[in-house]
Amino acid sequence: MKDYLKHHEWKIIEDSFHASYNKISESLFSIGNGRFGQRGMFEEKYSGQTMQGSYVAGVYYPDKTRVGWWKNGYPEYFAKVLNAADWKSIHVKVNDDEVDIANCELLLFCRTLDMQTGTLTRTMQIKTKSGVVLDIESQRFCSIANDDTAAIKYSITPVNDNVRIQVSLFIDGNVRNADSNYEEMFWNEVSQTASGNQLMVITETRKTNFRVATGCQWIVAVDEKEVPCKTNHHTASMYAGANIETAILKGQMLTACKYVSIVTSQNYENTELQNACVNSLMWSANKGYFNLMNDNAEAWQHKWDEADIKIEGDVAAQQAIRFNIFQLNQTYTGKDARLNIGPKGFTGEKYGGSTYWDTEAYCIPFYLSTASETVARNLLMYRYKHLPKAIENAAKLGFNNGAALYPMVTMNGEECHNEWEITFEEIHRNGAIAYAIFNYSRYTGDKTYLYDYGLEVLIGISRFWYQRVNWSIEKNKYVMLGVTGPNEYENNVNNNWYTNLLAQWCFQYTIDSLNSLKKIDIVKFKFLLEKISLNETLETDKWKDVIANIYLPEHNKLGIFLQQEGYMDKEQILVKDLPAENKPLNQKWSWDRILRSCFIKQADVLQGIYFFESNFTKEEIKRNFDFYEPRTVHESSLSPCIHAIIAAHIGDTDKAYEMYLRTARLDLNDYNNDTEDGCHTTSMAGTWMSIVEGFGGMRVKDDKLHFNPVLPLQWQGFSFKVRFRQHIIQLTINKNQIILDNITGENISVFIQNKLVTLKQDESTILNLKRKVLEQ
Amino acid sequence: MKDYLKHHEWKIIEDSFHASYNKISESLFSIGNGRFGQRGMFEEKYSGQTMQGSYVAGVYYPDKTRVGWWKNGYPEYFAKVLNAADWKSIHVKVNDDEVDIANCELLLFCRTLDMQTGTLTRTMQIKTKSGVVLDIESQRFCSIANDDTAAIKYSITPVNDNVRIQVSLFIDGNVRNADSNYEEMFWNEVSQTASGNQLMVITETRKTNFRVATGCQWIVAVDEKEVPCKTNHHTASMYAGANIETAILKGQMLTACKYVSIVTSQNYENTELQNACVNSLMWSANKGYFNLMNDNAEAWQHKWDEADIKIEGDVAAQQAIRFNIFQLNQTYTGKDARLNIGPKGFTGEKYGGSTYWDTEAYCIPFYLSTASETVARNLLMYRYKHLPKAIENAAKLGFNNGAALYPMVTMNGEECHNEWEITFEEIHRNGAIAYAIFNYSRYTGDKTYLYDYGLEVLIGISRFWYQRVNWSIEKNKYVMLGVTGPNEYENNVNNNWYTNLLAQWCFQYTIDSLNSLKKIDIVKFKFLLEKISLNETLETDKWKDVIANIYLPEHNKLGIFLQQEGYMDKEQILVKDLPAENKPLNQKWSWDRILRSCFIKQADVLQGIYFFESNFTKEEIKRNFDFYEPRTVHESSLSPCIHAIIAAHIGDTDKAYEMYLRTARLDLNDYNNDTEDGCHTTSMAGTWMSIVEGFGGMRVKDDKLHFNPVLPLQWQGFSFKVRFRQHIIQLTINKNQIILDNITGENISVFIQNKLVTLKQDESTILNLKRKVLEQ
Repeated sequence: MKDYLKHHEWKIIEDSFHASYNKISESLFSIGNGRFGQRGMFEEKYSGQTMQGSYVAGVYYPDKTRVGWWKNGYPEYFAKVLNAADWKSIHVKVNDDEVDIANCELLLFCRTLDMQTGTLTRTMQIKTKSGVVLDIESQRFCSIANDDTAAIKYSITPVNDNVRIQVSLFIDGNVRNADSNYEEMFWNEVSQTASGNQLMVITETRKTNFRVATGCQWIVAVDEKEVPCKTNHHTASMYAGANIETAILKGQMLTACKYVSIVTSQNYENTELQNACVNSLMWSANKGYFNLMNDNAEAWQHKWDEADIKIEGDVAAQQAIRFNIFQLNQTYTGKDARLNIGPKGFTGEKYGGSTYWDTEAYCIPFYLSTASETVARNLLMYRYKHLPKAIENAAKLGFNNGAALYPMVTMNGEECHNEWEITFEEIHRNGAIAYAIFNYSRYTGDKTYLYDYGLEVLIGISRFWYQRVNWSIEKNKYVMLGVTGPNEYENNVNNNWYTNLLAQWCFQYTIDSLNSLKKIDIVKFKFLLEKISLNETLETDKWKDVIANIYLPEHNKLGIFLQQEGYMDKEQILVKDLPAENKPLNQKWSWDRILRSCFIKQADVLQGIYFFESNFTKEEIKRNFDFYEPRTVHESSLSPCIHAIIAAHIGDTDKAYEMYLRTARLDLNDYNNDTEDGCHTTSMAGTWMSIVEGFGGMRVKDDKLHFNPVLPLQWQGFSFKVRFRQHIIQLTINKNQIILDNITGENISVFIQNKLVTLKQDESTILNLKRKVLEQ
Repeated sequence: MKDYLKHHEWKIIEDSFHASYNKISESLFSIGNGRFGQRGMFEEKYSGQTMQGSYVAGVYYPDKTRVGWWKNGYPEYFAKVLNAADWKSIHVKVNDDEVDIANCELLLFCRTLDMQTGTLTRTMQIKTKSGVVLDIESQRFCSIANDDTAAIKYSITPVNDNVRIQVSLFIDGNVRNADSNYEEMFWNEVSQTASGNQLMVITETRKTNFRVATGCQWIVAVDEKEVPCKTNHHTASMYAGANIETAILKGQMLTACKYVSIVTSQNYENTELQNACVNSLMWSANKGYFNLMNDNAEAWQHKWDEADIKIEGDVAAQQAIRFNIFQLNQTYTGKDARLNIGPKGFTGEKYGGSTYWDTEAYCIPFYLSTASETVARNLLMYRYKHLPKAIENAAKLGFNNGAALYPMVTMNGEECHNEWEITFEEIHRNGAIAYAIFNYSRYTGDKTYLYDYGLEVLIGISRFWYQRVNWSIEKNKYVMLGVTGPNEYENNVNNNWYTNLLAQWCFQYTIDSLNSLKKIDIVKFKFLLEKISLNETLETDKWKDVIANIYLPEHNKLGIFLQQEGYMDKEQILVKDLPAENKPLNQKWSWDRILRSCFIKQADVLQGIYFFESNFTKEEIKRNFDFYEPRTVHESSLSPCIHAIIAAHIGDTDKAYEMYLRTARLDLNDYNNDTEDGCHTTSMAGTWMSIVEGFGGMRVKDDKLHFNPVLPLQWQGFSFKVRFRQHIIQLTINKNQIILDNITGENISVFIQNKLVTLKQDESTILNLKRKVLEQ
């Protein structure tokens, strides 16, 4: 746990330099715009600890799989987000001495990420080895208003002497992934040009042939006036640079402005790339730095208007939740259905930047409530587009008849992961993908996705489940053998309750959806049946048989659902009785010890209860929570939020708050000692869920929003906004009141603490709270 | 399946060259002497398909582990047998043209491995590209009589012209392992010398610092007379060579003789290595090629006298069983307790040349019956010496109090393997190691190993089992969760019957052995307790509790032992109903499909029944065999022998013969398309077991040999010899008679078909067989 950043409601501030934490800071000070992003590295040369990282969404490399022992069915490669051309660098020489921040004395240092406007600023006063004192300010942003655009404004002022200064502006495509399996270079050269005020490097990924043009238009000014400078251009393979030299007087400010544009063959023909990049650069330069920055700030303001959460009385918590919302929004903007949310966003390479079930189980609820419904719909379209690959993937494992198994980890629909117990067995991901379709339809009320696309996905998944279960003569039930549930501390188990439940639900939801389409649009229904060769009655009858006869392990005496068959054969120890030196288990215990223990990595039975809460009584939920929570070590960042939501639901606000704390500042305080690899972007959506669905008690039932808010004792109050269909609703709770505001749109009826109220536009609905016994 | 080798009772013969099978032939024509060995590569240059392989027993390199996804507890490295200096090469130039066998016309070609004498001979007539016809004969052996010695005799006769000939004799340490994980070089240079008639290369392994001196003394003669030749010496890093040039007339024979000596720092101080090698070379050269060859042949004759198996009426079967016996004897001679039997012997790199449980479960019975008891005892000592490492290994996984988990794969006692489901879970290997102690004691009657060493191993293992089980409140039994049985087509199962049974037996055998030592030698007993801090009563009482209460899954309705909990939940299909295109499963099915199926890779429940046969009635055995055999795909070469033995035991000779056929010619016919990687050396012991314990029905009970022989219909008869304590007994069976001969030693009583008879020296005991109905 580290606490070197200042607490601030809207900003992340490092007000003195922490060299040993620099890689952590680089992760935390990352900026992006959904289309590209970069870690918060210095513009100047820095020979200390740094991890270069500049990423372009959707541009990946199929890195040859590394494996100890090959298993049939493993993928040939792991698709990796690429470390792409470095465009942020501005190297500086003063009187011919290169400024290396690692070798300077830092008289002043402050870097600030302003989340409200999406700008990263660094102000420094440094003393070089030769004694020159310089004031430096750099500011940059990746524009979410114009998502092929970024800009940097970089200024230097000599404080104690006149100096000759050389500024080297460049774009360098000679970058490698730190996580390359075979230390290969992933890029090929296409072209590089440096002339006038423009630099451009076009590179192409090996194997996948994505082309990326990274261009920059620069202006250098002294005291805000453009001045003639001596300029040398330099190009080399995948490199284009300009060295600009001038003399400045003590107290004069040299400013270099770099307008950057990144365009790719995803959006342009190869032949058009260069022009597209040049046009974009000229547009930016014309517009000017401040206008671009303001556009970006305005776009961010718009996001905050819809998605902000305010917490009263706890600045650290306020900062944390905004950091999480900021990261999610700069990682994925929902404009492009080919993109998705990598576990680390644009903050690092780890996990290859690929898509996991995190998107469906955690991120969809966030985007549903905080953005236009096209955002979540695009995330669903991503999977729809991958359906043929999911069918191929299932076929590779021996399934047929259009059965679809979505990959555990993917970039383009093909499986990337290669641990058999996960790749082949953690098949509950299929269920989460089906659940997201249901969730989207429930939340938005929009059934067109379901009928036009979702049903095909559901049928592929149901076909998979049908072939994945088998009839046990022994049990007189359908069983599902050899799976791994969300709790990855159990592998290859039989009849994981969560997975079986999901499968059962998938069948039913598919059948229900088929029936409703049949009623609504028989032509489309028949077209669908034809398209995917579905013999409706024959297949659905089989599915119904599984629904009726699937084995769902329970423990009658304890009155709980059983995580899997045989779970109660394990030695039953509670987390609280584990000596502290044993934690975290994944670092302190051997894998077999973890597997044999009863300890649960992340919500498993409880994930099922979370998904299908209304199917269970509060008593059932409480019994299961009271059984599983004490056995759960939460060694996945995706776990505590589910426990927080359930705890809040069953009235255990203290436990909910405890769980909330475990994720909210995960990266800001580097709790897991791994933020230097990048932030835990997808799990940030879970933090948001903890507040909105946990403390806010928000649910959607029968086309209506429900709120059952509770206020943690530690806070004075909180409020959040959610989009719901045409409305933006704000819920505020403090020690005395619950206040509901209907910010946009027509009147809307919502349930507040199980009572239906109508929220009128521009009129707050206020519920006075009885003072709780606890507070006396 | 390939059948390009001639069938011959004593020889392996390839009488025309099969270039595309050359790597297979190299494996089959391997020679070794327990101390070192090599694949059957050509002496001459060969630019075709070849895998260089020259190995020195016990000299290994810890190759950095390659892994896709690290799991805590994995070893840092995989110890690999090293491809060591090439000493066999003799390159030839004729009139300055280098002879490359791949580019010559082969007018005649025959290579022959004479298993009776342990010599490899190749005769060829070749026509070079320039039209010179040469008769070539090469012969070589690795002496089991003097195990630092090998020799090559190589002769060339020009047939159609006088020629100038250059013979290049060299030792080349610049060799690499084909299976290097990171393409590293494993050797460092120490020294190389070439002067007079002597060459020597001393190299040292990286990291492990084994030094190996490979020396050679050469003689060149024309028509068997030493002649003065022009000799150039050449050394380079890890290379020493001599180029010898002379003119010879048509019809004259040039002979080069290479006496080779290989000595290592395992047996000499580094400072003595060179001298030791030189002394050995001089001794060899003095003795001369023919005397050395005769010594080797004599030593082999001695081995055959004790271990031969004769099969009448089936030359292919005769050749196969001798090939198996030959391989086992040239791989391991039992002189050095630091050595063991790699799965491929000296025939290839695969599986790293390390030790597996194959040694205890399969090889020990072979060596017990065919060699001095010190051989098997040395194999046991190997594990005793590794006990501290086994305790360390267990500690790494979280066990304590001297619990020992032997590695799955090892070279020096440390675990090398890194698949969690095997490394951490295939713990039945511990049981096989305990069983080998029992087997040795039962067979030899020698209890000194047990009391002096074995008990410590047994206690370490029992301590491990005790910590590895846990009490299931649910079952009111001890359970063992998360294991992999011998059937590796099931992973991470609960309560594998075989493993639980072995654990139960281990406890009892340890307690019994402790009790008997206590009776026999209370001082040694107390010393032992002290040494390993055993609180006898306390610990053994706990073990007794597990013995009495361990869960052994059974299926009452079927009357069988259940491979593991939940096995009957699987869809029950039989191998015979599997379409042929699905086999072998390990190539045709994805790993998850294999795991979910009921198909069994290799004997599992039946392995337990084999070990503890006398605990079960024939009816029980038959019921289990009839259940499991039809579900077993035998995709391990270790499987059919166990089924053969049990089939013979329950009277199903046809099935026994079918099973026997699956292993006997596994390599000679390259059934699995993988002999090019090396021979399946350890499973060859299983083939031997199929005959002796299967058809021969040999058992040891209460210090007496039992034979219940049956004759497969396809054979006229067979006979085998076994050592039993001071005796060599030969059993012969033909269509009419069973004949027992007591070849050496005093009178001995044995059971033949359950009747006790006394075998007198030099007097055959004959039992006339009733003609069986089957034969009419």
